[in-house]
Amino acid sequence: MKKLVVLGSTGSVGRQTLEVVSAFPEKFRVLALTAASNWKLLVEQARKFHPQAVVILKSEYYPLVREALPKEVEVFSGEEALCEVASWPEAELVVSAIVGMAGLRPTLSALSVGKTVALANKEALVVGGDLIRRVRLKTGARILPVDSEHSALFQVLKGHRRREVSRLILTASGGPFLRTPKERFSEITPEEALKHPRWHMGAKITVDSATLMNKGLEVIEAHQLFGVPYRRIEVVIHPESIVHSLVEFRDGSTLAQMSLPDMRLPIAYALSYPERLPLPYPRLNLSEVGRLTFEAPDFEKFPCLRMAYEAGEKGGFFPVVLNAANEETVAAFLSGSIRFDHIPQVIEETLNRFSFSGKPGSLEEILRADDQARRKARQIIKEMK
Amino acid sequence: MKKLVVLGSTGSVGRQTLEVVSAFPEKFRVLALTAASNWKLLVEQARKFHPQAVVILKSEYYPLVREALPKEVEVFSGEEALCEVASWPEAELVVSAIVGMAGLRPTLSALSVGKTVALANKEALVVGGDLIRRVRLKTGARILPVDSEHSALFQVLKGHRRREVSRLILTASGGPFLRTPKERFSEITPEEALKHPRWHMGAKITVDSATLMNKGLEVIEAHQLFGVPYRRIEVVIHPESIVHSLVEFRDGSTLAQMSLPDMRLPIAYALSYPERLPLPYPRLNLSEVGRLTFEAPDFEKFPCLRMAYEAGEKGGFFPVVLNAANEETVAAFLSGSIRFDHIPQVIEETLNRFSFSGKPGSLEEILRADDQARRKARQIIKEMK
Repeated sequence: MKKLVVLGSTGSVGRQTLEVVSAFPEKFRVLALTAASNWKLLVEQARKFHPQAVVILKSEYYPLVREALPKEVEVFSGEEALCEVASWPEAELVVSAIVGMAGLRPTLSALSVGKTVALANKEALVVGGDLIRRVRLKTGARILPVDSEHSALFQVLKGHRRREVSRLILTASGGPFLRTPKERFSEITPEEALKHPRWHMGAKITVDSATLMNKGLEVIEAHQLFGVPYRRIEVVIHPESIVHSLVEFRDGSTLAQMSLPDMRLPIAYALSYPERLPLPYPRLNLSEVGRLTFEAPDFEKFPCLRMAYEAGEKGGFFPVVLNAANEETVAAFLSGSIRFDHIPQVIEETLNRFSFSGKPGSLEEILRADDQARRKARQIIKEMK
Repeated sequence: MKKLVVLGSTGSVGRQTLEVVSAFPEKFRVLALTAASNWKLLVEQARKFHPQAVVILKSEYYPLVREALPKEVEVFSGEEALCEVASWPEAELVVSAIVGMAGLRPTLSALSVGKTVALANKEALVVGGDLIRRVRLKTGARILPVDSEHSALFQVLKGHRRREVSRLILTASGGPFLRTPKERFSEITPEEALKHPRWHMGAKITVDSATLMNKGLEVIEAHQLFGVPYRRIEVVIHPESIVHSLVEFRDGSTLAQMSLPDMRLPIAYALSYPERLPLPYPRLNLSEVGRLTFEAPDFEKFPCLRMAYEAGEKGGFFPVVLNAANEETVAAFLSGSIRFDHIPQVIEETLNRFSFSGKPGSLEEILRADDQARRKARQIIKEMK
């Protein structure tokens, strides 16, 4: 029985994590669940999985959760509690499924006590990559990627020599606007952007997929996870989302991981690694799929992808500012404050106006830069109206 | 410097093996080269690679080879000599690239003294699979597959647990007659059958690709190499020949190996295993390829594939007879004695008329069954005229 802590259990990855757990009750035991504000689902999950503790981040919901659950379940609230359950001594695997920057602190908390982390929160690696590397070097903590692309790379690299890798090739579905002419981008509504053709995910990541920022963040994540330089990380558009990523080795042989687009697979792989569980979900049938297509990404039409590469290459605070500006901008787009085609503009402008200096040495410095970048982005958004 | 013996150095795989060797002169040293009858090329290769010995199988060419090469090079002739160089004490890797049944004896000779064998000769495993397994158990000899499909499976399985494999999926280009209506099969000429759309190979294997017998033999080979039952080995038609085979694991995750169709890749992998060489050959660019297609094989139109599965399942002498009948039939087709659509008919009739009993216990029993099957097949061919 592997003892799990699931950070962000009410989000898309969190819910699917618990789906896998409930399919293999003999394999896993849930120690703790956490949510930001969806207290009703948190309570429902706690009643089903009987954790020792739950954390509801926002304190206003604390009384509701406390009242709804039996005395045996400890109920906490606030970020400190989140970090505490993330580093719970008994935990064998911490699933980090909090969306956005908010996932960084608890992820670091888990890694700093040497926990193995199943990481779905790509922002942690994007903004805190260097910090995380230092912590892992010190504690020997392991990261198991949950993103389908990074899980693909991780699976494919297993058993092969890292120094013989010549390229990582991340696939991208291309999002809902792959065939939409750029001139139409100004009219795209949040409703349209939230209709992803292949993957069912949370709102923020779905918009990121539509701008290709998601792929850009994944390029940075891949660099941080596998230590491959940016010039040897490529993106290929693959609308069917069957091939989840590929590794080319120096002999030209390319290994790929495929499956139907179903997040439960990479989640299950991270949960049970190095074992593979006999998952009961539908299987890929290549003859039924019939064809897989590939094309080069259009960096002109999707400037977020270019900006992410550039921020990654520059390093330091650049990915922090990129991510902060993106989070603010996506939120503004979803709330109807700005247009879809404003997203890259606001991010670019934020990057331009930010006074970069030095490298992030601590979590506090990252959080400060993040905060400054967000304020700059909000200012730019206000100016646009 | 890895010391190599190349059996069948003047054939397609043999020539490409020497191409790889000459690209990495610091990695390999050629101890011995062998050929059946192409003495001119053998002499040319010996002058370039300076082996200690060459074997020309057919004794009529011995004087020509002896005269053409300097005294330092030992020249032999005959099957005994072939087996002797195959088990040469100094050899670190024996490349078994003889086409057809003729490759079995020297391959066994190498394995029986514990040599690592880079095996391109699929017939050895098809007809002598059980024998080879026993020999390998005794000597611990290792087989590194050279066939692109089996190399793909071998690469993909590396680092993963065999017991977690749920299916092996062999890809097949479908050959030149994938889109030809079955009614037209009676008119197919040897010239047409020798035009393979993707791979440049020897004549016999090219015809086997056109009938899908090649894929059938590869199914048996995969069963023998990886110990996966036939019902969990599938074939999918993939005309572009980019994905060379796939392994599905029990979680539904499927790993695939891809590259441009170029035999030098799997050859180089077997030569330098477990290292990968920085090969200077053209690389796969998925955006350029654009699309990969897949379809189920048509067992009605290509009965050789069905017969191979059946012979494999039945085991014993069935694969021996299947292979012998196929070799005779393909030769008869190439020499113009029978029609293309006669190939499966003759093989089926040979299997029907053969009196099967017992299991092959020794090489002699296999050779006897092989000889009987060939005579039966020739008899049937004669009756057809």
